[in-house]
Amino acid sequence: MYTRTLFIDGQEDYPLTNRKEVARLAGVSEATVSRVLNGIGPMKDSTKKRVLDAAKQLNYELNAVASSFARGRSGNLGVVMPHVPKVHLFSTYYFSELLSGIGEAVRSKGYGLLLLFRDPAAEFDYVSLYRTQRVDACLILGASAIDSEIAGIHRLAEASLPFCVMDQRFEHSGLSIVAADHEQGSYDAVRHLIDGGCTRIGFLNGSPQYSNSQDRHEGYLRALAEAGIEPDESIFYEGNYSRTSGRRAAEAVYRDLGRLDAIFVGNDRMAIGLMQALREKGCRLPDDLKIVAYDDSDAASFTEPPLTTVKVPFYDMGRLAADKLLARLTDKDQTDGVINEKLQTELKIRKSSGN
Amino acid sequence: MYTRTLFIDGQEDYPLTNRKEVARLAGVSEATVSRVLNGIGPMKDSTKKRVLDAAKQLNYELNAVASSFARGRSGNLGVVMPHVPKVHLFSTYYFSELLSGIGEAVRSKGYGLLLLFRDPAAEFDYVSLYRTQRVDACLILGASAIDSEIAGIHRLAEASLPFCVMDQRFEHSGLSIVAADHEQGSYDAVRHLIDGGCTRIGFLNGSPQYSNSQDRHEGYLRALAEAGIEPDESIFYEGNYSRTSGRRAAEAVYRDLGRLDAIFVGNDRMAIGLMQALREKGCRLPDDLKIVAYDDSDAASFTEPPLTTVKVPFYDMGRLAADKLLARLTDKDQTDGVINEKLQTELKIRKSSGN
Repeated sequence: MYTRTLFIDGQEDYPLTNRKEVARLAGVSEATVSRVLNGIGPMKDSTKKRVLDAAKQLNYELNAVASSFARGRSGNLGVVMPHVPKVHLFSTYYFSELLSGIGEAVRSKGYGLLLLFRDPAAEFDYVSLYRTQRVDACLILGASAIDSEIAGIHRLAEASLPFCVMDQRFEHSGLSIVAADHEQGSYDAVRHLIDGGCTRIGFLNGSPQYSNSQDRHEGYLRALAEAGIEPDESIFYEGNYSRTSGRRAAEAVYRDLGRLDAIFVGNDRMAIGLMQALREKGCRLPDDLKIVAYDDSDAASFTEPPLTTVKVPFYDMGRLAADKLLARLTDKDQTDGVINEKLQTELKIRKSSGN
Repeated sequence: MYTRTLFIDGQEDYPLTNRKEVARLAGVSEATVSRVLNGIGPMKDSTKKRVLDAAKQLNYELNAVASSFARGRSGNLGVVMPHVPKVHLFSTYYFSELLSGIGEAVRSKGYGLLLLFRDPAAEFDYVSLYRTQRVDACLILGASAIDSEIAGIHRLAEASLPFCVMDQRFEHSGLSIVAADHEQGSYDAVRHLIDGGCTRIGFLNGSPQYSNSQDRHEGYLRALAEAGIEPDESIFYEGNYSRTSGRRAAEAVYRDLGRLDAIFVGNDRMAIGLMQALREKGCRLPDDLKIVAYDDSDAASFTEPPLTTVKVPFYDMGRLAADKLLARLTDKDQTDGVINEKLQTELKIRKSSGN
C-alpha cells in the first residue's frame, strides 16, 4: 500500500539521502543528479553516463513520482483553459500568444506545462489539482464573471494556493492577476479616430462577462466624454470575439452606415469578419467606414486595408505571469505577495482608420 | 524513504483496497471515487460531497501522485515540441491546429496534456519521461531528419514505449506515425496550375530536413513529369516556412518573373510574405504571377488576393493520433500494433491562382 495523505498546508520533506552518495561517486552536484535522473533539461552525454553509472553501482534510481511524493511537488505548472466546443482555442491569437510566453518561462525553468480544460458552466475544482499534486501552481486563462467561474476562483483564493488569473478581474483580495491596460488602449483607439475628424463612432464590443470587455467600454466612453461627444447606444453592437460574430454584426453596421464615420472593434478577428462582410456588400474601406481594431494579431497587417489596431503584449503577459508564479515556488520570501501587473498597450496605425 | 525503482517493462499493480469501501459508503462506483479525488472531469456537487464525506469518515484520501506511483501511471499524455528561439510556435497554424486536436482527445478522455520542449540540436531523452513517470505516452511534433532527432526517436522506438510521431517519416520499423499525404496534395496543387495553362512553374519549398518538404518536392515533380514538363532547378527557391523567409525569397522570384507563369509555395506563411514583398515591388497578383500555397490557414481566405491553397487536416491528425495512442494505453489488445495513418488533403481554389 502506497496510499498516504499529504495535506497541502502540512507537507513534510523526505530527504532522498542516497542522492548525495550518487553525486559524490559521479563527481557532480546533487542538482545534476536530479536533472539527469528526472530527464530535465539538456545534459552532456558524458555527464549523463557518469551519473547513470554511479546510480547503477549504488543500486539507486530516482523515480520522479516517488520523488514528487517525497517532496510534495509535481514539477508542473498547470494552465487551465476553457473548453469551448468546436472552437480551436490554440488557433486564436489571444491564447496562442499567452501560451507561447508561458511556455518560454516554463521551459527555461525546467518545469512541465500541464494543460487542463475546464467546462465554464461548472465550478472547476482547482484545489484538487494541488491536493492531488498534479500541479504546483496554476495560471487561469479565459476566465469570465459567470457564477460558476467566480465560485471556483474564490475558493482557490481562499485556500491561499499559488495561482494567477490572466487578464480578468475578480473582486477578491489576495487574488493575483496579470493583465493589460485595456481601458487606456481603448481610449487611445477612439482618441485616434476623433483626432482624425470622426465624431459618430460606433463600438462593436465582445462578450460583457469579460472584465476586459468592460474596460474597453470604459476607455471608449472616456475618449468620447473628453471630446464632448454624447455616447449613442443605438450604434453599440455586440459580438463574442469570433470572426463569425463580426460578419454577423455587419448586417446592423451596414444598415447604420449613414450614421457612422467610424467603428471601434474589440478585437482583430471580429474586425476581419466585419470587413469581409462589408466588402461583400460593396463597401469601400476605409472610405465608407473607418475602423480601429484591437490585438495586433499577425493577420492585422495583411488584411485589405491593413488594420489600425491596439497591440496587446500577450506573449509578455504570459511570460511575466509564469515567471513570477514559479519564482514564488522556489523563493520562500516571495510566497506572501500578491501578483498585480498591468501591461501597457500600443496603437499601431495602418490604413483602415483612413491614414 | 519513498524511493523505489519501477521499471517500465515490469510495472506491478498495487490495488488501492480502500477505494472500494469509499465507493460502497458513498453509494457510487469506484471510478467515480477516483474521478472526484483526482479532480478529473465535471461532477455534480452532491456526488462530490458524498464521496468526500465518505473518504473523510474512512480517513481515506487518494493522493494522485501516490496513486500514480501504485499504478505506474501519470495520467498525462506528453507532447514534445521543438524549442526555437524567438519563434512563437503556438501562434503558427501548424502547431496550434495539431494541439487543438490533441487537446480535444486528451480532454474527452480525462487525461492531462503535458507540454515539454526539446532542443533540436541535442538528443532528447524521451525514455526518461516514461521511466520517471511524467507521461504515459508521447506525441512528437515538429521532428526532423537531423542526427540528434533521429537518435532520440530511434532509441524510443527500440524501448517499445507508446509514442507517435506527427507528420515526419523515420526509417525504423515499429515507429508509429500520423501524417498527411503531402505528395498527393502537392501534385494536386501543381496539376491545378498546369490545367490553368501554366508551364513555367517555380517552387518555393520549406526546409529539406522535414520529410514533408521532400514529399512536396516529389508531388511537384510527378505533376510536371505527367505533363511532359522538364523541371528547371533555376526556379527552385528555399525558405524555412516562416513569413520572413517568404519575403526574402521575393528578391529572387522578382528577378525571375520573366521566366515564371506561377509558383507553388510550401505553406501559406511563406506565400503571404512573398505576396507582400512582391506587391511592395509593384507586382499585380495574380496577373504577374499565379500562386498556389499550402495549409489553408485562417489567413488564406483574407489575403489580397485570397490564396488558392491545399487544406491539410491538422486538427484531425492531432485528434486521431492522441485518440489512437490513448486507446492503446487502456486496451491491452491494441498495444502491439503500430499506428500508421495518412490523411488526405484538399485543394481550395481562390483567386491567387488566377481563377
